[in-house]
Amino acid sequence: MLIVQKFGGTSVGDLNRIANVASRVSATKKAGNDVVVVVSAMSGETNKLIEYAEFFSKTPSRADMDMLLSSGERVTASLLAIALNEMGHSAVAMTGRGAGIVTDSIHTKARIQDINPTALNQAIKEGKIVVVAGFQGVTEDGNVTTLGRGGSDLSAVAIAGAMKADLCEIYTDVSGIFTTDPRIEPKAKKLTQISYDEMLELASLGAKVLQNRSVELAKKLNVNLVTRTSFSNEEGTLITKEENIMEKPVVSGIALDRNQARVSLMGVADRPGIASDIFTKLANNGVNIDMIIQNTAHDGKANIDFTVPVSDLNDAKLAVDSFMQTGEITNSSYNESICKVSIVGVGMKSHTGVAAKAFSTMAQENININMISTSEIKVSMVIDEKYAELAVRSLHSAYQLDK
Amino acid sequence: MLIVQKFGGTSVGDLNRIANVASRVSATKKAGNDVVVVVSAMSGETNKLIEYAEFFSKTPSRADMDMLLSSGERVTASLLAIALNEMGHSAVAMTGRGAGIVTDSIHTKARIQDINPTALNQAIKEGKIVVVAGFQGVTEDGNVTTLGRGGSDLSAVAIAGAMKADLCEIYTDVSGIFTTDPRIEPKAKKLTQISYDEMLELASLGAKVLQNRSVELAKKLNVNLVTRTSFSNEEGTLITKEENIMEKPVVSGIALDRNQARVSLMGVADRPGIASDIFTKLANNGVNIDMIIQNTAHDGKANIDFTVPVSDLNDAKLAVDSFMQTGEITNSSYNESICKVSIVGVGMKSHTGVAAKAFSTMAQENININMISTSEIKVSMVIDEKYAELAVRSLHSAYQLDK
Repeated sequence: MLIVQKFGGTSVGDLNRIANVASRVSATKKAGNDVVVVVSAMSGETNKLIEYAEFFSKTPSRADMDMLLSSGERVTASLLAIALNEMGHSAVAMTGRGAGIVTDSIHTKARIQDINPTALNQAIKEGKIVVVAGFQGVTEDGNVTTLGRGGSDLSAVAIAGAMKADLCEIYTDVSGIFTTDPRIEPKAKKLTQISYDEMLELASLGAKVLQNRSVELAKKLNVNLVTRTSFSNEEGTLITKEENIMEKPVVSGIALDRNQARVSLMGVADRPGIASDIFTKLANNGVNIDMIIQNTAHDGKANIDFTVPVSDLNDAKLAVDSFMQTGEITNSSYNESICKVSIVGVGMKSHTGVAAKAFSTMAQENININMISTSEIKVSMVIDEKYAELAVRSLHSAYQLDK
Repeated sequence: MLIVQKFGGTSVGDLNRIANVASRVSATKKAGNDVVVVVSAMSGETNKLIEYAEFFSKTPSRADMDMLLSSGERVTASLLAIALNEMGHSAVAMTGRGAGIVTDSIHTKARIQDINPTALNQAIKEGKIVVVAGFQGVTEDGNVTTLGRGGSDLSAVAIAGAMKADLCEIYTDVSGIFTTDPRIEPKAKKLTQISYDEMLELASLGAKVLQNRSVELAKKLNVNLVTRTSFSNEEGTLITKEENIMEKPVVSGIALDRNQARVSLMGVADRPGIASDIFTKLANNGVNIDMIIQNTAHDGKANIDFTVPVSDLNDAKLAVDSFMQTGEITNSSYNESICKVSIVGVGMKSHTGVAAKAFSTMAQENININMISTSEIKVSMVIDEKYAELAVRSLHSAYQLDK
């Protein structure tokens, strides 16, 4: 098998941990696999470099930052190659450039445009272990870029896709994806496998493990992703396409998103295009809208409710205020004390009564549901934040995820 | 003027010092000059990375080391560019690759083969300050290399040569080249200017400031070098071609080399080719020979004396022993308690009596001269090490270098 293994900052956090990573890579190679390793900067290094830059400027140029920040991964890659060579392997360290990773020129959050895996394939053909500095690429003009948050995962997934690797293992300090947050529900179970789409909907469960960008890229490139921990030999969670998943549970997990605020607009003028105007204005202010509910009130005027990330709330208020001034909205209110609980599972597509069970579970616990939205594989409910843990635990139990 | 300014590790040793460097570069630019800056890694960084590598291997591959070590200069270059941009300049950071520095593939001590200054010239043409990561280049195949000890100086000199810069300033913590080591003779004076050849002969006086490799390259490329300190505005020493030096002092400086040992071979067989055999053997053992004296003794056998660096003495002994075993050398002795004092000056070429004055000065101080060698611009004497300081001071005074 050709396996791409990616080790994040905590997994390479100090020299002993890099030595552990070397042992793991060595074992994978000795088991008869070809291995490409993608590494992040040693944890703390990137933040240190950012602090250095901030000593000189609060607004450093992004190109300068990319040259600065790309150095951290080069150090880890070189050290891991040195460790592997010392163990008797033939290892070669490559920069993003060396690995053929070409990006657009949006410095500090570049997108991978193309990977030319010639050098990678050649090294693997020669029996070498390739260690790639993650998080970085080069523009077509040859300028160094970095890929933004979660960038090393993207490097690994893109390389796995370009080389048609059998597996792309993402090693972190978390052992996989759980049916729900184990800090809320200690009975949460680690999932053996899950589809890309479920993973994307369960983002909040995997946020510390995998960014959606990486899952989306894995889905696009059809890369079998595994998230597992580098601190034990525990099996992780396979994220793959739905067709590969044999036993499809109706519900795979319960996600909780506390980072939501509700915006309520009352007395919205009843003219054609008013909703479009409001949401265009919000979009122009950079506000991400999640759920939307519109009710027509008695007096012919409408009420519109929607949710936004808490971080976008101020921008949303500014947009709403401009409509208040024109009189097209009579009143508005904001509520940050809400949360969104979601039930996710590909099996929902072929099972009925999933949503009904969610609503009845909430009713049994006397939890009022403020808003509801559903998709093919998800039911989301907005509730008072104070019920967050109770809702997660009762749903987890109702769908028998602890069994 | 186009000025290349190179700042070594202590000059960029911490963030405040990098800020000082930015001020100096800014002032040079504001005075109407075009500026290319070459920087080393922050002091301590390279050693830290070497220690990291040694944690994994005592014999890391040189290519891995180059990828590792080249990261330090990138950090400094990025930070300085950020600082300069913040000050309102338009600055761009370049790696060795970006600056077009092509080397051979002798990793960790690569030699610069070519510089393609297109990107450098273009940036300067656009009014930018260019900040180049020193100490590094790339092979024709695109692999990162480093230039070995003093490598950032070489980067600066090579760039100055390729861009036909008016001046290449090397900033260190030393304010210039002195007539002799001020720790031995406090009356030592800083030289305003000195020729390349004198500088090469005075290597011991400039060793902490400039490596001979850099001076040789400057001579070859006809680069006007200035060594000065980054910690004050004090003028430094200009190292240039002899023709540029208006006032040629007979003697420019007194150099002291304590790092010499004397090897004495007695009863060397009187056969044709014996000297050639001995010195070939020594060369094959990697021993650098400096001065050689051969006397024919009474019994038809010869005595041969020569000096070697102390670090080569063991290898020299091994070579000599092999001749002792064949009986072609009767006896040998070694003396590490010697030193070499040299009087250097281009003016010697046109002045007589320079050597005579050196010998008489030694005689006045009752210092016995063991060996003598001379070149067009140098007189060297091997003496007992205990007289080292006395010899330097009396010669310094005899040639009126304190005036």
